[in-house]
Amino acid sequence: MNNIFQLPFPLPPIEIVETLVKTEQFRIERIISTGQATPPDQWYDQVQDEWVILLQGQATVSYEDGREVALIAGDYLLIAAHEKHRVKETSVDPPCIWLAIHGSLVKN
Amino acid sequence: MNNIFQLPFPLPPIEIVETLVKTEQFRIERIISTGQATPPDQWYDQVQDEWVILLQGQATVSYEDGREVALIAGDYLLIAAHEKHRVKETSVDPPCIWLAIHGSLVKN
Repeated sequence: MNNIFQLPFPLPPIEIVETLVKTEQFRIERIISTGQATPPDQWYDQVQDEWVILLQGQATVSYEDGREVALIAGDYLLIAAHEKHRVKETSVDPPCIWLAIHGSLVKN
Repeated sequence: MNNIFQLPFPLPPIEIVETLVKTEQFRIERIISTGQATPPDQWYDQVQDEWVILLQGQATVSYEDGREVALIAGDYLLIAAHEKHRVKETSVDPPCIWLAIHGSLVKN
């Protein structure tokens, strides 16, 4: 049985991105972060919408307009395609476990 | 901030299904179960694929071929369209919190 909370041991010093489900239009990923952040001058500018939930840990996501969103375990966000954002900080202990869904998720 | 672990209080005696994201092709739901099960003679026979993760509680899913899968928090399953299954049991305490993704998730 696959379990989202089961982490590799020891954790490597880099962010781990694992694809759990993938089709041409759609992707589910587990991301494990341990203190990593998007470099201050960089933004994620994604082609697809993303629905993301933080399942363990604490993190802060910031947006180009200056908004900052502090996340605790269970908090979820819908980030529209091309909504520029970055991960400002992620907790090391406990490690952050994210579940991210990429696809066409917003009605046009 | 929306949080998947935040439950209504008091919980009603029925299963709660909330749609978090919905487009024509795709749906994300939170389901809260407190002891409910699919009636013994019924099967879910779904038009779409489903990726489902149990985020809290314990549950058992059974399949038409006799397989039974016991789930603890964090376990996830991909159920292909028309793969007949039922929820055999769900824990009351803690309540089961499921995250279910419905869409075209399996490559053909």
